[in-house]
Amino acid sequence: MNTPTNARFNHRKYRPATVIAKTDRRWPDQTLTTAPLWCSVDLRDGNQALIEPMSVSQKQQMWALLVSMGFKEIEVGFPAASQPDFDFVRWLIEANQIPEDVTIQVLVQARDELIERTYEALAGVRRAVVHVYNSTSPVQRQRVFNLDKQGILDIAVNGARKVASEAKRYPQTEWVFQYSPESFSTTEVEFAVEVCNAVIDVWQPTPQKKAIFNLPATVESSMPNVFADQIEWFCDHVNQRDSLIISIHTHNDRGCGVAAAELAMLAGADRIEGTLLGNGERTGNMDIVTMAMNLYSQGVDPQLDISMADDIIATVEACTNIKTHPRHPWLGELVYTAFSGSHQDAIRKCLSKQQDDEPWDVAYLPIDPRDLGRNYQSVIRVNSQSGKGGAAYLLEQQIGATLPRWMQIELAQPIQRRAEMQEGELSPEQILHVFRAEFMNNDGRYSLAGYQIDKQGNQYHVQASINDGSQLTLIHGHGSGAISAFADAMHKATGIDVQIVQFDEQAISEGSDATAMAFVQASIRGSRYTAVAQDGDTLSASLNAILFTINKAIIDSRAVA
Amino acid sequence: MNTPTNARFNHRKYRPATVIAKTDRRWPDQTLTTAPLWCSVDLRDGNQALIEPMSVSQKQQMWALLVSMGFKEIEVGFPAASQPDFDFVRWLIEANQIPEDVTIQVLVQARDELIERTYEALAGVRRAVVHVYNSTSPVQRQRVFNLDKQGILDIAVNGARKVASEAKRYPQTEWVFQYSPESFSTTEVEFAVEVCNAVIDVWQPTPQKKAIFNLPATVESSMPNVFADQIEWFCDHVNQRDSLIISIHTHNDRGCGVAAAELAMLAGADRIEGTLLGNGERTGNMDIVTMAMNLYSQGVDPQLDISMADDIIATVEACTNIKTHPRHPWLGELVYTAFSGSHQDAIRKCLSKQQDDEPWDVAYLPIDPRDLGRNYQSVIRVNSQSGKGGAAYLLEQQIGATLPRWMQIELAQPIQRRAEMQEGELSPEQILHVFRAEFMNNDGRYSLAGYQIDKQGNQYHVQASINDGSQLTLIHGHGSGAISAFADAMHKATGIDVQIVQFDEQAISEGSDATAMAFVQASIRGSRYTAVAQDGDTLSASLNAILFTINKAIIDSRAVA
Repeated sequence: MNTPTNARFNHRKYRPATVIAKTDRRWPDQTLTTAPLWCSVDLRDGNQALIEPMSVSQKQQMWALLVSMGFKEIEVGFPAASQPDFDFVRWLIEANQIPEDVTIQVLVQARDELIERTYEALAGVRRAVVHVYNSTSPVQRQRVFNLDKQGILDIAVNGARKVASEAKRYPQTEWVFQYSPESFSTTEVEFAVEVCNAVIDVWQPTPQKKAIFNLPATVESSMPNVFADQIEWFCDHVNQRDSLIISIHTHNDRGCGVAAAELAMLAGADRIEGTLLGNGERTGNMDIVTMAMNLYSQGVDPQLDISMADDIIATVEACTNIKTHPRHPWLGELVYTAFSGSHQDAIRKCLSKQQDDEPWDVAYLPIDPRDLGRNYQSVIRVNSQSGKGGAAYLLEQQIGATLPRWMQIELAQPIQRRAEMQEGELSPEQILHVFRAEFMNNDGRYSLAGYQIDKQGNQYHVQASINDGSQLTLIHGHGSGAISAFADAMHKATGIDVQIVQFDEQAISEGSDATAMAFVQASIRGSRYTAVAQDGDTLSASLNAILFTINKAIIDSRAVA
Repeated sequence: MNTPTNARFNHRKYRPATVIAKTDRRWPDQTLTTAPLWCSVDLRDGNQALIEPMSVSQKQQMWALLVSMGFKEIEVGFPAASQPDFDFVRWLIEANQIPEDVTIQVLVQARDELIERTYEALAGVRRAVVHVYNSTSPVQRQRVFNLDKQGILDIAVNGARKVASEAKRYPQTEWVFQYSPESFSTTEVEFAVEVCNAVIDVWQPTPQKKAIFNLPATVESSMPNVFADQIEWFCDHVNQRDSLIISIHTHNDRGCGVAAAELAMLAGADRIEGTLLGNGERTGNMDIVTMAMNLYSQGVDPQLDISMADDIIATVEACTNIKTHPRHPWLGELVYTAFSGSHQDAIRKCLSKQQDDEPWDVAYLPIDPRDLGRNYQSVIRVNSQSGKGGAAYLLEQQIGATLPRWMQIELAQPIQRRAEMQEGELSPEQILHVFRAEFMNNDGRYSLAGYQIDKQGNQYHVQASINDGSQLTLIHGHGSGAISAFADAMHKATGIDVQIVQFDEQAISEGSDATAMAFVQASIRGSRYTAVAQDGDTLSASLNAILFTINKAIIDSRAVA
C-alpha cells in the first residue's frame, strides 16, 4: 500500500518525537537487580478511568488486596476533586485502616484551594505523600493554559509553597512531598529540569528527607529507549539528585508502558507508579503485575506477592468491570497453555527432567505456573494443530500410566483425525474415549479365559484356554519368554503369525483395580496393529493385548474381504 | 514483603537472562523512519494457538482482511503438520486467490519428509517463502533433543539442503528460503550465528536473491534492550549480511513484544513477523497493528492500512473467538475516552484550536481518532471523577450552542452530584436532562407574556406584560440596555432586586425552532442564581432567563421560610 485507500488515514499530519542527542548514554549497560519502590495508583488513576467509578465497598476491597500484596505506597484518590475520594481517605484514617508500614498518597493540582482541601482530607494521618502536579508540555502551555514557561513555572512554585505551608499546619503528620511535571515525556527536558529545580528550591529536600519527583509519560509518545534517554538526562541535570526519589509513571498508548518503565529504571529511576493489570486512562497505566513478574522470572525479588494471582484477577475484575485478557502476560487464562505439538512435547520432556532443587529450565514455560497457583496440565488443549505430546500428557493423567514413546506416536493419529473432524478442542475425556475405542476395544473374535506358564531353563511353555465365540479352545506354545510362547500358541492354533514389534508394560499408579497396562504393537500379515490391555495381573494384561492385535487383524482382513 | 507468604513463590529458582557486554552499541542512536517488511503469521502461529482452530471460512475471511490491509507476505500454515493447513494452501493456489504482489509463506520443521510434503502443498504457486526451522537453545538441546551443538547444526544444514533440493523439483515457482533458529533469544548468540552461517553456506544467497533469516523470541525472556543487543551482535557477525533479510518474530511473555520488535529494528532488522492484535501462543505474538500505528503516529508511513480498524477488530474476533481488550492500544473501545475532567477540558481546548492543515497537536489524543473511523465525542464519558469540560462538550453537541466558561463551571456541580449519586456514567441524554432540570425549568411564579422596547439616546425603556399565576401584570422600567431595563421593571413591580453577574447569548446552530439561547447568572438577595432560556428571539430568551433566576430565588426563599 503506497497510497492510502482513505484520505483520512494520513501519516503526514503527525510529527516524530523529539530525541536527545546523547553522547554519554549509560543505561543500556545496566541491568535490573532490585525491585523499584512500587506505588499503586489503582484507587486514583485507575479508578478515575472507569465507566463506573468504584463504590466504597469496591475501594475497600481493592485497598485490602493492595495491602496484602505488599504495597507500601498507595495513591488513594484526588480528595479535593471528588467527595467520594475525600470520604474514602477519611474512612482510611478514622477507621484506622492503614498499616504501620503503609503510606497513603493523594493527588492534587497546584491550586491553593484544592491543596487546602487535600490537607483537610488527610488530617490525622500518621504519614502521607502529598502529590502535587501541573502540566508543562508545549501543547498544554499553548493550547490549554495559554501561558508561557514562566507562567507554568509560577504555578509549580506556588503549588510547592502552598503544599509546604499547609503541611506546617498539621505537624503531627510525617509529610512526604511529591511533584509531577505532568506530560513530562512531551516537555522539553531542559524545561522539565528547570521546573523541578524550582520546586526543589522551595522544598529543600535532603538525603535524609527526600522528596519524590515523578516523571510521567501521561501519554506514551515515543519509543521506550527515547523515554529512557529523557530519564537519564533528567537525572544527570536535576539539582540535589541524592535528595530525590525519581519516580516513573508511564501509560501504555504505544503498548510499551512496561518496557518504558523498565528502561527508565536502567536510566536511574527509583520508583514506579502503576496499576494492577494496567487499568487506567485510555490504554491504561503500566501494569505493575507484569513488571513485578518480569523481575521475579529473572531471579529478582519483586517485593510484591503475586502468588495470589487468582485474587488479583478476581478483585481487579470486580472493581473495574473489565475482564482480564486471556493472553495477559503472566496471569491470562491461556498463558500456560501450549497448543503446538512440538511445544507440548518439549514441555513434557523438560518437566520430566526438572528437579526441585535446580534452576527452572523448561522450554516455553518461563516460570513454573504453580508459583501462581496455576498448572500446565489444567490448561493444556488438544486440537488438530497439536501433536502427540499434549494428548499423551492429558491421557497419562487419567490412566495413571506413562505411554511409551512409540505409543504416543500411535495415539497422535486418531487424536488428530478426531480433532480435525470436530474442528475444535478435545477434552481429556474425549482423548480417553479415543484411546479406549482405538486401542482397548475387544469386540473381536478371541478372548482369554485362562493360562498356565512353565519355565524350564531358558524356555517358556504356555498353555491357555481361549474363548472363540461360545467355544473354549486349549492352545499350547513355547518361546524365549511368556509373550513369544503365547504368540507361538496362537500361531499353532489359528495360523495367524504374530510378530511383536513393540512391547511395553506399565504399572498403574492409582485409581483402579487394575495394576498393569500392557502396550503391544504387532505385525500381522504385513500390517501393524496396536492394542492396549489393562488387568490386575501383569502377564494377563500382556497376553490380552496380543489377543487384541490379532482380533484387529481379523476384523481388518474381513473388511478387506 | 521480605518473606514470601508462600513457599512456592520463590524468585530464587530463576536465573537472569544472559547479556552481551557490548562496547560498540549503536542502536540507541537510531530512529525509525521507514516501516519494516511486514509478515503476518495470523494464519499459522495465530491459528495454531486457538482453542478452536479457524475453520476454512474463517481462514478465508482472515486472508481477505490481510490482503486488503496491504500485507505482502503472509504465513498461511504448517501444511506438513495439518491436513486443514495443507488444504487451505491448495485452495489459495488452485482457486487463484493470491494477488500478484502477495507472497505466501509456509512453516516446516527441518525434517525431510515434512519438507517434501510442504513442497507438495505449494506445487504450482507463483512465488512462496519456505520457512524451515529447528530449535537451538541450550534447554532444547539438552532436555528436548538430547543433542550437542553439532547435532543441532546438522539438523539445520540437512534441512537447508533438503529445502534447496526440493525447490529444484519445482522450477516454475520463484522460491524464497527462510531459516529460523527457533528459541534464538535464549540461544548463545555465537552459536546462533554459527548455525545461520552454516545454512547460508548451503543456500548461497546474494544481494539480488536474498534469503530471510528470522530471529525469534519464541518466548520473550529478557528486557527489550537485551534483545536489541542480540540482534545488533547477530547482524554484525553473520556472514553475507547484504544478502540477508533479517526478520524478527517476538512474543509477548513479558508484555514487551512490540518494544522488542521496535528496538530490534533500530538494531538492524528489516522485517517483522507478527499478528493482528497480538494473537498467538500463550501471551501472543507481537501485535503488528500496534507497531504500525506507533509508526503512523510519528509521521512514518506504516505501509499497512489500519483505517479499517473496525473490520480488523470484527474479523480477528470472528476468527479467534477472543475479544479485543477495551484498553488495547490504538483500537480498544476506551482508547479515545477521557474520564478525567482536566483531560476533557484540555482536549476540548486543543480540538478547538486544531487546524486541518497543521500537524496534529492535541493533549491526551496522540492521533486524531477519526483516522481510524472513531471519534472523541462518541466515547467520552462523564462520571463523578470528571469535571466540567466533558459534560459541557457532550451538552454542546446536543443543544447546538457553546457554553460560556462560567456556565461550564455552573454545570459541573449538578453533573458531579448526579454522577456521584448514581455511582456511574452519565449518558449525553442524562446530562441534557440535568441541564434542563437545573437551569431551564420554569415552574416558578412569573412568565413573560409580551414586551415592548424603546430606545431613546442611550436609554432603554421596557414595557412588559408578566403572568403571575392567572393574573397579567404590566411592568415598566429603564436602563442602559434592554436587560437592565427589564430588571429595573421587575424590581419596581415586585421589590426583587436583580443584579446581573453573568450574561451571555448564543445563536443556536441547528435542529430547533429556537435560534437563541441566553445564559444568565444573577445575584438576588445575596445569592447567585443561574438560568438558561431558549427562544426564537434573542431578547425574549434573555428576558426569560432573567425571569427564571427570579423564580428560582422565590422558590429558594420559600424553602428557607
